Amino acid sequence: MHAAPLVDIMRGGHIESQHTGSVVVCDAAGALVFSLGDPERAAFPRSAIKAFQAIPLLTSGAADRFALTPRELALACASHTGTPLHTQTAAAILAKAGRDLVCLECGTHWPSSTTAARALAAAGDTPNALHNNCSGKHAGFVCTAVATNRNPAGYVDADHPTMRAVIEAVDVCTGARMQAARQGTDGCSIPTFMTPLRAVATGFARFGTGQGLPPEVAAAAARLRPAVAANPFMIAGEGRFDTEVMDALGEAAFVKGGAEGVVAGALPALGLGFALKIDDGAARAADAAAASLLRRLLGPAPVLERWASQKLRNWNGIEVGALVACDGLRP
Amino acid sequence: MHAAPLVDIMRGGHIESQHTGSVVVCDAAGALVFSLGDPERAAFPRSAIKAFQAIPLLTSGAADRFALTPRELALACASHTGTPLHTQTAAAILAKAGRDLVCLECGTHWPSSTTAARALAAAGDTPNALHNNCSGKHAGFVCTAVATNRNPAGYVDADHPTMRAVIEAVDVCTGARMQAARQGTDGCSIPTFMTPLRAVATGFARFGTGQGLPPEVAAAAARLRPAVAANPFMIAGEGRFDTEVMDALGEAAFVKGGAEGVVAGALPALGLGFALKIDDGAARAADAAAASLLRRLLGPAPVLERWASQKLRNWNGIEVGALVACDGLRP
Repeated sequence: MHAAPLVDIMRGGHIESQHTGSVVVCDAAGALVFSLGDPERAAFPRSAIKAFQAIPLLTSGAADRFALTPRELALACASHTGTPLHTQTAAAILAKAGRDLVCLECGTHWPSSTTAARALAAAGDTPNALHNNCSGKHAGFVCTAVATNRNPAGYVDADHPTMRAVIEAVDVCTGARMQAARQGTDGCSIPTFMTPLRAVATGFARFGTGQGLPPEVAAAAARLRPAVAANPFMIAGEGRFDTEVMDALGEAAFVKGGAEGVVAGALPALGLGFALKIDDGAARAADAAAASLLRRLLGPAPVLERWASQKLRNWNGIEVGALVACDGLRP
Repeated sequence: MHAAPLVDIMRGGHIESQHTGSVVVCDAAGALVFSLGDPERAAFPRSAIKAFQAIPLLTSGAADRFALTPRELALACASHTGTPLHTQTAAAILAKAGRDLVCLECGTHWPSSTTAARALAAAGDTPNALHNNCSGKHAGFVCTAVATNRNPAGYVDADHPTMRAVIEAVDVCTGARMQAARQGTDGCSIPTFMTPLRAVATGFARFGTGQGLPPEVAAAAARLRPAVAANPFMIAGEGRFDTEVMDALGEAAFVKGGAEGVVAGALPALGLGFALKIDDGAARAADAAAASLLRRLLGPAPVLERWASQKLRNWNGIEVGALVACDGLRP
């Protein structure tokens, strides 16, 4: 596997650590516009394709039937940090379908927002499934099941009608096909499939433009994009890369990270999609590499500069080094 | 830089992520016994050499003058998790020198023990410098300064007499020499120096055996090793690699991790030292690689099996993959 240096961790002027990986930019026809490393590298896209997985929420009619708001649609595409606004919104989605958190099959973990986690602890509480970073997506799955008159129970299984629709939506975007041979199980228990980065990038070029998609899928994408752009806090949370980029750039960039160093997204005005994977799975490198790539494609912006090249300070606030995207990603 | 695959992250039977790096095993004369990747790779050893940095605490006479216990000596070598037992012990070291946490120059961060952090939050408290993972080491520096009639203020600077003694002790062990050209600043604000892994491994072979060290340094090492072996909780904390290995193996292995994917240590009965660096800085990989290396050198043990090959479960407890040290580290 050919991999490119993507991000250096500097200390005292020396490279202390380095992250390698692959980066792909495609148009909606799948033509390669830019790449580093191996554009055909297969990776589990994990949460980076939650927007594709949210498509059946719209194409099934569930979003209209339950009058989901743009904020709720944004949370259905999110990996959130478990703050009260996130958990309340997930609960509201479920309530609109006449359900509650008992239906969620994503499991429970403490909020990744340390502020939210400490507030929960300070109140003597413990987390529930609403705090799971995937609870909005799973609430959307429950809505889709209810709206299509299916029992939501077991919706995480690949052969549940709702999950079949979710997998089909992903395949329609990426042009890949679900195969058991490339299946894994995601952190929230739904299936995830090894997919070439090029297919993920192509899928996002389609998601961003509607080109190459069936009309109802293109319409769903056209509704999800502005919903997220108008509610960037819902997609992740305070201080997170996806939130900060979309807060600053609006509909110019749809950006979504996934576990193990994946970031993917769409640049609708350019007709492009992108996907990248850090070989070692580090989120710190994925965010910096994505920022540098976006800077290359969209031009400079303060939010991209800030994430592409970060000063590292120690516990006394002393600048001890930097996290810097490598030259290969520069314009 | 030549790097070897060291740890795979598996999901659904596929390699999802991979960590590369270098591993070195040496004897006290610096002869290479085993290596993967580049044995001359330079790295900041960070906290992996805290035991070397604790040597002046003994050679200065401070440990005797203040009647430090083995538990306190172990904490002076530690990267702890900020539990009450850790912070109380750090405070006790300072009190013996007639000082308190105001003298600590390591900075403040929340305990890395989530239990301890949440308990602190639940009590309405915030952390102080005693919770810094390096507070035991810094308390030792303060003791050394006081015992040698120096003002501890500014002890983190490379030209403070106490820090000069600390740097000299590290150089005596590794055979490297302090050079400003390879200097960086550590998370706790003291200097750290880019050092070939081979020199770090050689230093630990000497630390484990006393061979090649001045008598007073060998005597200090001979006192620190059993102090840590008898108090493995102090060196790190519950569920941490260093603690679990030394809890299980006692004086057969001295093991210490550092930031950015470094682990180093001594196998005194074999006369060997080792050092490894994960290129991307991941702690999860450093621990697994170290476990696999120790299994190769010491033979099988449950604690090493557990860390060298770990099942990965998701938020529902479903087994979704594994973290596995690569074949190159197997016997």
